[in-house]
Amino acid sequence: MKKSLLIPFVLAPMAIPSVQGKEQVRKDQTEKRPNIIFFLVDDMGWQDTSLPFWTRKTHYNEEFETPNMERLAAKGMMFTQAYASSISSPSRCSLLTGANAARHCVTNWTYPKNEQTDSPSSVFKVADWNVNGICEVPGISHTFQVTALPELLKENGYHTIHCGKAHFGAVDTPGESPYHFGFEVNIAGHAGGGLASYLGEDNYGNRTDGKPSPAFAVPGLEKYWGTHTFVTEALTLEAIKALDHAKEYNQPFFLYMAHYAIHIPIDKDARYYQKYLDKGLSPKEAAYAGLIEGMDKSLGDLMDWLDKNGETENTIIIFMSDNGGLASQPDWRDGTPYTQNSPLKSGKGSAYEGGIREPMIVSWPGVVKPDTKCDKYMIIEDFFPTILEMAGVKHYSTVQQVDGKSIVPLLTQAGDPSNGRSLYWNFPNNWGNTGPGIGPTCTVRKGDWKLIYYYDTGKKELFDIKEDIGEKNDLSLQHPDIVKRLSKDLGRYLRKVGGQRPTFKATGLPCPWPDEIDR
Amino acid sequence: MKKSLLIPFVLAPMAIPSVQGKEQVRKDQTEKRPNIIFFLVDDMGWQDTSLPFWTRKTHYNEEFETPNMERLAAKGMMFTQAYASSISSPSRCSLLTGANAARHCVTNWTYPKNEQTDSPSSVFKVADWNVNGICEVPGISHTFQVTALPELLKENGYHTIHCGKAHFGAVDTPGESPYHFGFEVNIAGHAGGGLASYLGEDNYGNRTDGKPSPAFAVPGLEKYWGTHTFVTEALTLEAIKALDHAKEYNQPFFLYMAHYAIHIPIDKDARYYQKYLDKGLSPKEAAYAGLIEGMDKSLGDLMDWLDKNGETENTIIIFMSDNGGLASQPDWRDGTPYTQNSPLKSGKGSAYEGGIREPMIVSWPGVVKPDTKCDKYMIIEDFFPTILEMAGVKHYSTVQQVDGKSIVPLLTQAGDPSNGRSLYWNFPNNWGNTGPGIGPTCTVRKGDWKLIYYYDTGKKELFDIKEDIGEKNDLSLQHPDIVKRLSKDLGRYLRKVGGQRPTFKATGLPCPWPDEIDR
Repeated sequence: MKKSLLIPFVLAPMAIPSVQGKEQVRKDQTEKRPNIIFFLVDDMGWQDTSLPFWTRKTHYNEEFETPNMERLAAKGMMFTQAYASSISSPSRCSLLTGANAARHCVTNWTYPKNEQTDSPSSVFKVADWNVNGICEVPGISHTFQVTALPELLKENGYHTIHCGKAHFGAVDTPGESPYHFGFEVNIAGHAGGGLASYLGEDNYGNRTDGKPSPAFAVPGLEKYWGTHTFVTEALTLEAIKALDHAKEYNQPFFLYMAHYAIHIPIDKDARYYQKYLDKGLSPKEAAYAGLIEGMDKSLGDLMDWLDKNGETENTIIIFMSDNGGLASQPDWRDGTPYTQNSPLKSGKGSAYEGGIREPMIVSWPGVVKPDTKCDKYMIIEDFFPTILEMAGVKHYSTVQQVDGKSIVPLLTQAGDPSNGRSLYWNFPNNWGNTGPGIGPTCTVRKGDWKLIYYYDTGKKELFDIKEDIGEKNDLSLQHPDIVKRLSKDLGRYLRKVGGQRPTFKATGLPCPWPDEIDR
Repeated sequence: MKKSLLIPFVLAPMAIPSVQGKEQVRKDQTEKRPNIIFFLVDDMGWQDTSLPFWTRKTHYNEEFETPNMERLAAKGMMFTQAYASSISSPSRCSLLTGANAARHCVTNWTYPKNEQTDSPSSVFKVADWNVNGICEVPGISHTFQVTALPELLKENGYHTIHCGKAHFGAVDTPGESPYHFGFEVNIAGHAGGGLASYLGEDNYGNRTDGKPSPAFAVPGLEKYWGTHTFVTEALTLEAIKALDHAKEYNQPFFLYMAHYAIHIPIDKDARYYQKYLDKGLSPKEAAYAGLIEGMDKSLGDLMDWLDKNGETENTIIIFMSDNGGLASQPDWRDGTPYTQNSPLKSGKGSAYEGGIREPMIVSWPGVVKPDTKCDKYMIIEDFFPTILEMAGVKHYSTVQQVDGKSIVPLLTQAGDPSNGRSLYWNFPNNWGNTGPGIGPTCTVRKGDWKLIYYYDTGKKELFDIKEDIGEKNDLSLQHPDIVKRLSKDLGRYLRKVGGQRPTFKATGLPCPWPDEIDR
């Protein structure tokens, strides 16, 4: 397990010493604070929407229909270079902690306790990563100890609601439960990172014959079993009930709306399927389009709730995906493998843009200018300080070191935190699916340059992302100086934060850091 | 709403700055810490057990059967003078906060938001008490802001489980949910302070015909609906599942096992009912005895779980009731009203011993001497600092002022925190049921003396509790000096902590404090 710098966890004073008034108030809570909805889609690619995040519309933008994403974008700011990790758990753990995946070392997807989910490789042994995920208490093997975002929001007066997929910690560890991280409501979240079924008719994968349900059966939606309610809709209905309830409380709310959609299996949503067939999509693609539109409807339903309840002007909505669209599994979708995020290369699990670049929108009435676009880059751990800043939480401390930077200056167009900044990824793992950029890698992006280093082969690739968004032209041989500079930057960072690397099976030696080899 | 002194809420450092070892550890968590089960029974009287808490056995001790309470007492220490408030919410709020009811001002039972549950009186208007209960966030009308016991235990590494009746805050306020107070698991707890039905056959009071369920329908036990599972058993089965789960976590656990039993309605538990009829009890008393034995079986089942799982030696069990046995409702039980806690006078809702003296046992292997008895007095808010001390939580701060004193010295027989101490009660309310000592009162106990002051009549009563446990001989006229001294003590305390008092309807003036009138 990784070593980690521990920061003393001292909370800022949360109450003023003596109040003579009628109500007990905390100084930083006297101002009205915004509600925050973090709308996170699972495995959604950059092209899985009718809203173009690229400079031009693609055929996917024509096929898919996401009117509510368009509605949200018209009210807020689109980010064209928003990054996450290429796999779910690393992204979600970064989001909840502000720590880069290289630091928290939850670098692959979690589920079984004390077990690596990596596929075996004959060449290398994957790093001894934190297979049990994140955890708020110390002493739990193979976890990264944290002070989680919802915990801080709860402590600062927010009513905290978790809805959908959690995937923060392995089963049978404390972090399997959203309640462990300061959520006060949990709808259907557990250790599982996927879902057995979208269908109410299938009880979302739960068995009723007394035999054990599969690991990814969705928990907690019993009341919809046997109905025609798609899981995306069931989650939305339950989230809205939680919001109705939250409205009774005199507190701002934080709704973490983390859909299971659009993770595989690509079940057919009867509300949309025929429409997409009629549009000419293949059955697989029509089903996929239905998953997307169902998710988009959920966004619209939440926005409608805000409108109806007079909360629109006081609510921030952040739209994000946790990793790139799945493009390495030909049995699930049609089209040439690895092209479904085009113009981005590859997809989920890959170091290429298709694995890590996400559709992202932020609406913040009165603060973010409507219908704007930001081409600066940011990364998923940035949400941690950003959301705390949005919530007016100025004084806080955390067990973990926070790597993320607030993107509020980008939102207010008051500054550019991405200027001169390097973004880092570390994946000393073996996901299982194969394809371009999928393998044990570490990556750095600085300015327009992006360097990918393959731990197992020592290969380095250099791309000018601005000129070559599809990562077709490896410029590493043309620019050895840049390769060297970025390798050094990346190697230093990984060592500094306690990043991990695989080991060669043949020699038992660790794979070199990127700045330990030249090519 | 009451004013309250706010203490700055600064948590002690929870992590040491830098650890080079394999695991991240917190200094005060390196020692093995005990599991804690707080087993709280609702409305259980001092005589509702086969275990005699008095100096001799009563006929109730002969009728009721609580072998597991006897088993627990043989392992630990019985307290013969353990006190609570005379009503549920005040006791539970004191337990979770360490604050005396005079301070937290949740002085009557809570349920509807912003509404007093008091019965109207033609003579007085009850105090503007905190009808919405306790709450961890500021700014919620008519609540007492707190840092709750489970929150502190969670922050210090405990896995926190709530099972059963909560009753900490009014419906539609944040405090209605145990998750709001740092519990990580909640089984069947909500704003309700009672239960619509004990019977699985009745779905615990939940309606399935589409019409709204009654307020006190027990939530969250859907899987037992339509079965023959008595609610006490269902809660125990679920608590044991939570313990099985907790065992997977490398954390000590805090199980707050707060039974709905033995609150009215006195439903028949088919497992026990006939046995008590055969013993010669009347149908009502046989049903009541069944509620008690079912509760006792739950205690035994938890103790069996500890034995089977090797956790007995590392688990503290605290047995307690939240107020006296119900004795003012002749339609529910047989016998002369107000005698069912005999030798104690009156029952639930009363300032007499029958309303406030509770059966209490603590087992703490290796620390508390088995089969011992403590005749020193203590009060329910003492559990707050006691449990934190048991858990090894040395450094903590709270929003609220803590009035309770740790009773660890009593448990270890190393000291007597009750020596020279006054205990205080304040009930500026009108419960509804009538009977001896039931009405707007404040009370002080110091040494063997107990003074009760009736706000509405100005009457004072003085008892020598040691000599007159049944409070038959009012000695106030014989000892005006003691009446005066205790009145002063009580009046000073109530004013100091922001205690409230009723107002006379005729004049609009507040009822005098006990030290403002002589008689």
